Amino acid sequence: MRCVLVSKTLDLRSYIGAALARTAPRIEVVDHTADAPAQDVRLALAWHPPHDAFEHYPNLEAVCSIAAGVDNIIACPSLRSGVEVVRVVDPGQAQLMSGFIAWHVIGHQRGFAAFRAQQRDRIWQRRDQRRAQDVSVGILGNGEIGQRVAADLVHLGFPVMSWSRTAKAISSSSRSFHGPAGLAAMLAETEVLVNLLPLTAETRGILNGELFAQMRRGGYLIQVGRGEHLVEDDLLAAIERGHLSGAALDVFTAEPLAQAHPFWHHPQIAITPHDASDVSVHAVATTLAATADAVSAGRRPPHAIDRARGY
Amino acid sequence: MRCVLVSKTLDLRSYIGAALARTAPRIEVVDHTADAPAQDVRLALAWHPPHDAFEHYPNLEAVCSIAAGVDNIIACPSLRSGVEVVRVVDPGQAQLMSGFIAWHVIGHQRGFAAFRAQQRDRIWQRRDQRRAQDVSVGILGNGEIGQRVAADLVHLGFPVMSWSRTAKAISSSSRSFHGPAGLAAMLAETEVLVNLLPLTAETRGILNGELFAQMRRGGYLIQVGRGEHLVEDDLLAAIERGHLSGAALDVFTAEPLAQAHPFWHHPQIAITPHDASDVSVHAVATTLAATADAVSAGRRPPHAIDRARGY
Repeated sequence: MRCVLVSKTLDLRSYIGAALARTAPRIEVVDHTADAPAQDVRLALAWHPPHDAFEHYPNLEAVCSIAAGVDNIIACPSLRSGVEVVRVVDPGQAQLMSGFIAWHVIGHQRGFAAFRAQQRDRIWQRRDQRRAQDVSVGILGNGEIGQRVAADLVHLGFPVMSWSRTAKAISSSSRSFHGPAGLAAMLAETEVLVNLLPLTAETRGILNGELFAQMRRGGYLIQVGRGEHLVEDDLLAAIERGHLSGAALDVFTAEPLAQAHPFWHHPQIAITPHDASDVSVHAVATTLAATADAVSAGRRPPHAIDRARGY
Repeated sequence: MRCVLVSKTLDLRSYIGAALARTAPRIEVVDHTADAPAQDVRLALAWHPPHDAFEHYPNLEAVCSIAAGVDNIIACPSLRSGVEVVRVVDPGQAQLMSGFIAWHVIGHQRGFAAFRAQQRDRIWQRRDQRRAQDVSVGILGNGEIGQRVAADLVHLGFPVMSWSRTAKAISSSSRSFHGPAGLAAMLAETEVLVNLLPLTAETRGILNGELFAQMRRGGYLIQVGRGEHLVEDDLLAAIERGHLSGAALDVFTAEPLAQAHPFWHHPQIAITPHDASDVSVHAVATTLAATADAVSAGRRPPHAIDRARGY
């Protein structure tokens, strides 16, 4: 099957070529060009596609992302309704994400930033040893990654709550909340808030001053969703007035973060360059192969999203 | 039962008084004085006792520590053979220690120190996302705390090995090693070395240049045992020549760490002020009560150590 590679920002051939040759040599990749329409393309691998990209492929049936998120693909105006959009689900990514989040949660619990400041100033001063059981964690998003994060934090002794838009029938060691009322109830008990939501029209700007005000005083934000979830000025204001004690931010509205951005040198904000956890290229190649198989067989691909819902 | 409080360094009455009044009001605490011998004292709570302290208590049967370690008590020259020495075992402490260690292991895995340096310099640069499965952890010490640390790190995806002086018949998700040959075998596969050993004649100075040389190049030390386990100059030399990539040190030969000590400002060394994890005062009071019960009944107290072995 022929698969077109469509991206404004990445050289997808360099990225996927070798892995695909190993995993699914029957998939022939072709580069996107703005030449004549390609009738024989039924599959695409895409990341930040140009606005008109999909106009060239009238018989396109499925588009795979190279990540867990698909927001940049479904936002593409030339993507016809009916084309399936497929996300990558990778347990290895969930584990990387979980370790990344555990590091920030424990760092907040034990005050490692204060220890670093003390070391710089050669101050020998013990701190209150807060127990994990006294640091409540609320997780926005209860999908594959959120469930792994919750399970690991529970194992480490933290009281964990998970929120999703709609009720989920999953067995979990965390307490589950859903809907607007559930969000308010969870926030009221949350000290550390972890954002793992998909970016949709509903979740854009969800991390705002009104939400922060519902968290416990001294709370901490771990933002690993999408930059557009966060109203950046509201975060700065919540820290400024002492309601939040700080934040760890991995994603930003504009990436790379601008040199003049106040986040860089904020003493209570830890920055990482959208590097919390990627899916492996092997997982992308496997997803593409499974999608090709499904398209050939006339089945719906695994991990195809609900386009109306956005994830 | 009457219990004498013996310490050169701490006000044990302030420390234990309220907890003991709640937990074991039948224990009457008395302060240590260098007056006439006290015939009616059969129990002591001690921490860094003066050298001649125990001469005053000819009928002493048991001494409790206020921590997991007892090295400072059994080193006291006036402690007669036959007196039981009791350590405190506290699952809450094991959990605190485990979180502390997990934080340093993940920090090494993901290069969070490099991210901090990048933030300081406003550099947006992604890093290799090393998977937990590629970072091997060797733990020196396979007691209550070591087993908890191993279980948590295994849960987080790390390959974990545990070493103890003698073989242990425990079920564990980590690979077990013992004896000198086992130590060499474990070190050869170890990237992150965690020291949780008790301080004994055998383990004093065990963290030395010869041991570091047996670890993998680029290795990392997490030192949460006792300061005297580490030959400090050997650590500095191993980092200097690039064999070790860094260390997290919570305990030191001399505490507080001297202002002029090179550890304070070493860019690859993270310092905490002997603050990784304490037992709770409740656990100490409970241990003291159980020890009093055992002494009254003529039984050996729970968690009494083997004095010949030293732990």
